[in-house]
Amino acid sequence: MSTYEARLAALREQLKADRLDGFVVPLTDEHMSEYVGSYAQRLAWLTGFQGSAGSAVVLPEEAAIFTDGRYTLQVRDQVDGKNWSYQSVPETSVSDWLKAHAPDGGRIGYDPWLHTSEWVKRAKDALAAKGAELVPVRRNPIDAVWADRPEPSRAHLIVHPDRYTGKSSAAKRQEMADWLKEQGADAAVLAALDSIAWTFNVRGQDVDRTPVALAFALVNADGTADLFVEPEKIDAAVRQHLGNGVRIHDRTAFEPALAALAGKTVAVDPERSVAAIFEALDKAGAKVIARRDPSILPKAIKNEVEIAGHKAAQARDGAALSRFLRWVQAEAPKGGVDELGAAAKLRELRAANGDLRDLSFDTISGAGPNGAIVHYRVNEETNRPLEMNSIYLVDSGGQYADGTTDVTRTVAIGTPTAGARDRFTRVLKGHIAIARARFPEGTRGTQLDSFARQFLWEAGLDYAHGTGHGVGSFLSVHEGPQRISPAGSSQAGGDEPLQAGMILSNEPGYYKTGEYGIRVENLVLVVPIEVDGAEKKVLGFETLTFAPLDRKLIEVAMLTPEERAWVDDYHAQVLAVVGGQLEGEDLDWLRAQCAPL
Amino acid sequence: MSTYEARLAALREQLKADRLDGFVVPLTDEHMSEYVGSYAQRLAWLTGFQGSAGSAVVLPEEAAIFTDGRYTLQVRDQVDGKNWSYQSVPETSVSDWLKAHAPDGGRIGYDPWLHTSEWVKRAKDALAAKGAELVPVRRNPIDAVWADRPEPSRAHLIVHPDRYTGKSSAAKRQEMADWLKEQGADAAVLAALDSIAWTFNVRGQDVDRTPVALAFALVNADGTADLFVEPEKIDAAVRQHLGNGVRIHDRTAFEPALAALAGKTVAVDPERSVAAIFEALDKAGAKVIARRDPSILPKAIKNEVEIAGHKAAQARDGAALSRFLRWVQAEAPKGGVDELGAAAKLRELRAANGDLRDLSFDTISGAGPNGAIVHYRVNEETNRPLEMNSIYLVDSGGQYADGTTDVTRTVAIGTPTAGARDRFTRVLKGHIAIARARFPEGTRGTQLDSFARQFLWEAGLDYAHGTGHGVGSFLSVHEGPQRISPAGSSQAGGDEPLQAGMILSNEPGYYKTGEYGIRVENLVLVVPIEVDGAEKKVLGFETLTFAPLDRKLIEVAMLTPEERAWVDDYHAQVLAVVGGQLEGEDLDWLRAQCAPL
Repeated sequence: MSTYEARLAALREQLKADRLDGFVVPLTDEHMSEYVGSYAQRLAWLTGFQGSAGSAVVLPEEAAIFTDGRYTLQVRDQVDGKNWSYQSVPETSVSDWLKAHAPDGGRIGYDPWLHTSEWVKRAKDALAAKGAELVPVRRNPIDAVWADRPEPSRAHLIVHPDRYTGKSSAAKRQEMADWLKEQGADAAVLAALDSIAWTFNVRGQDVDRTPVALAFALVNADGTADLFVEPEKIDAAVRQHLGNGVRIHDRTAFEPALAALAGKTVAVDPERSVAAIFEALDKAGAKVIARRDPSILPKAIKNEVEIAGHKAAQARDGAALSRFLRWVQAEAPKGGVDELGAAAKLRELRAANGDLRDLSFDTISGAGPNGAIVHYRVNEETNRPLEMNSIYLVDSGGQYADGTTDVTRTVAIGTPTAGARDRFTRVLKGHIAIARARFPEGTRGTQLDSFARQFLWEAGLDYAHGTGHGVGSFLSVHEGPQRISPAGSSQAGGDEPLQAGMILSNEPGYYKTGEYGIRVENLVLVVPIEVDGAEKKVLGFETLTFAPLDRKLIEVAMLTPEERAWVDDYHAQVLAVVGGQLEGEDLDWLRAQCAPL
Repeated sequence: MSTYEARLAALREQLKADRLDGFVVPLTDEHMSEYVGSYAQRLAWLTGFQGSAGSAVVLPEEAAIFTDGRYTLQVRDQVDGKNWSYQSVPETSVSDWLKAHAPDGGRIGYDPWLHTSEWVKRAKDALAAKGAELVPVRRNPIDAVWADRPEPSRAHLIVHPDRYTGKSSAAKRQEMADWLKEQGADAAVLAALDSIAWTFNVRGQDVDRTPVALAFALVNADGTADLFVEPEKIDAAVRQHLGNGVRIHDRTAFEPALAALAGKTVAVDPERSVAAIFEALDKAGAKVIARRDPSILPKAIKNEVEIAGHKAAQARDGAALSRFLRWVQAEAPKGGVDELGAAAKLRELRAANGDLRDLSFDTISGAGPNGAIVHYRVNEETNRPLEMNSIYLVDSGGQYADGTTDVTRTVAIGTPTAGARDRFTRVLKGHIAIARARFPEGTRGTQLDSFARQFLWEAGLDYAHGTGHGVGSFLSVHEGPQRISPAGSSQAGGDEPLQAGMILSNEPGYYKTGEYGIRVENLVLVVPIEVDGAEKKVLGFETLTFAPLDRKLIEVAMLTPEERAWVDDYHAQVLAVVGGQLEGEDLDWLRAQCAPL
């Protein structure tokens, strides 16, 4: 089973044995996670696709893999087009494709622990048009043929102390209990791993890059909670931290616990809880009310302690990144720096201060044409040198106990072309338009997205990703519900009004396939703005990320006086925040980078 | 029954007789029309509310009227707060309110010819929470107590010739027939009045301001059609124009015709067809497929003949409006001009060339504080003089055989304050940002909306309406599916990508309650734009409306060089398009208005 072809054949045999005419393979876990543990990497195991979002459908005679605009190039590199047809979402959904391709009257399997009820409903409706049936499986057929599938992690949970969280778990649970009473509910299901980590003020080590532990939870209207997590992962410190109000159960006890909720009213988040949870509650005779996970909004709106922690993490992270940028500028022109080496150097510099817990995601280290692959992940095969007169894009971040960072810088090695300078400057102008935006309370991120694109649009250019995503506090680097994106109703979360205390990325880009990628990304904090004579409460952004922009890429003549002043002011802040942590040639270099344009 | 209080009491008596505990009163007709004939003005009859959008719920002990942000002030003026509670949509929906206020276990009536199925479903769900029931009525209880309810209009249909439409009705119906075959359907229901007018190339006189005739239609996969309209409204010319492919039936034969579609597959638009249509088809055993009315997109994308006609109408309309603006500027400072007189003068000037068929909506003629009422409609009681040193807002349009216009100008009588100049200039800058926008194919109007608001947002200001709506060709002045608005998924149509040939309004505004209203509105045409080096097809807007802006309101120092150039270029075009139609003092005045800033 060393080849993807053999794995696909084995799955088809298994489906035959299971009397299924097809199977749907999402990239998620029982918690609807974006980043999942190795035990749940079924899509990658089956297809070779290494991207962070996608799904697949296997039928007896054909198979399709579904990815979005970020992975159009990558999927073709990683997944064999002989066995797989490439499908683009949102243009083609799995449901649409099944409707067109599923055999008439066929039985298509799905794992109810890996899909939302809404997805199940849509897919069922689509298949009904063909007289075909969507069938829940008891055991995932991939697991049946994946002989060396990793065990779920057994790593210990760690206490995340109040000095970082700014609020005790008991206080958070009491607020949820009050909310449950308002809703007339007895309990809420928490299935999202970051929600559980946030609610209980614990962190885990079960998923690379995201400090969460595999668990489910029930938060009850009496202020107590039930936490379903392998007990051997809980040490004495965590047990003491959780206290008497939290009953600890084996993770496998979650489904039976749902079955015991007969007659109770239970709040469940349809976006964040899988279909199997709803089915178990329905079967038990519980009354299910669909409500957003009550931790989502308080988790997104950072308190003063979290904001202060985030700023400390950013200052530390900005110093490491600045050292790295100086190193790249000095070393790459001499030759001998490649994408893997650069990523390793950056990690080493981040780790040097001793506070780094993990990267916040795999560093995107893209030289030349690899930079145009939006969510590029370097490996030995794709590794490229950083060549003279090319563009290098580096998108990276760190997990620190006090904050999660995410930053992209674009670097010209040697002399950039006029075209690249033009593109970079358009992207930068869009970035500045977001950074300087003022908007009334109630404004949603979708309403700001075009500000970032307007200068690219003028030239008939665009980028195929959102402008900004929420970011957690020593948690997920992609955290909802806020975002800045052009998403319509089809993508959940786009409708969330921005509120003071939310942290988002500001990351417009431009990608020239086969040549280079450009992205300028800082994190920003939503803050109230005092405006004389304002009739509404006004919000804006405070930039949190401090690392110099590459001056060589800025076409100053394209900037308005206000934009130029923004860059100069930003660089002055970079020097103020980061300068004190640098010395010698690093500091000299930073001073030069941060001089007025 | 001369008082609204007596009407409400009579309705309550009728509800008691009908064994209902409440009734929902929308402002629409059997065609989900925005503007409805006098026979269907049930909300206005019951409550006194004269706005163009709203609804009401009557319960035994309380009653509520629901209006949006445009009518917050107006509803309080027109509807008695003693008998009615004011509710704001979208913050509170009728369903939400019913959920909170309907009597436990009560029976709430609705007229299935006046609501969509989706509304019925939502309201049913909401009431179910109270054990209450939503009950369709056979006869509308308002009609039972509305003694002098007007008869539906008997006005004749008129032929709308191909020289205006650019495409024959037979050709339009053939395209629909081809589409029906693709969908595997036998027929499509057309229930929207403008869809029927467009499809059959006829116009009507049944609704003020919108040249449509009350009718239903079935378009069949064989290219024939059935038109349900009082036969006495069809004269020989129309009958000949419709030809043998169109069978004419009495309007009352529509429901029986649906009942005869047993076994057929019928496409019905859930947004534009009332619940009663779905119920009749379901009962008949027809297979209903939910599809957007097939005329919507081709009607929105104007062909070359329609565009040329629209431009001719605009030139004519711009000359009338320019004469009016000169007259206002000359006469108002002398005193003696009031809102009603100004609206009458404007109508007289529009009618003078002999081509005006109707206004496209009731002129909004708002002096001083009345201008701040977004959809103000002047009457004898509210009529105000145009006073010195005040702001006058006039939003108006004409129905011409070759096009429908809609334009707003804001005029300073005497000397405007610095505050008003600041606000006007911010609104104008937003208007220019839309007019100059460039965007890739596939962009939706919602993505452009904030461009119009950004300069108001900077000052903590905003406006509580959309930035642009689609406009028909000698049809509805509000026509979907395109729009420029911040609407999220809750408002249909916001997700329609803009396409070349669509016509929209560009109308940001600012309203200072109790002082004045500002709005700058031109119609714009979506056009392809050639951009060197573009990687996407680029679209932009061509402004179609030509009438001078009030220079006294422009704070030139607030404009960028590009914005200033846009104003000068626009005024040069106004002079070129309109100047040739004016003479004497009108022309002199226009030249002065159109000189470079």
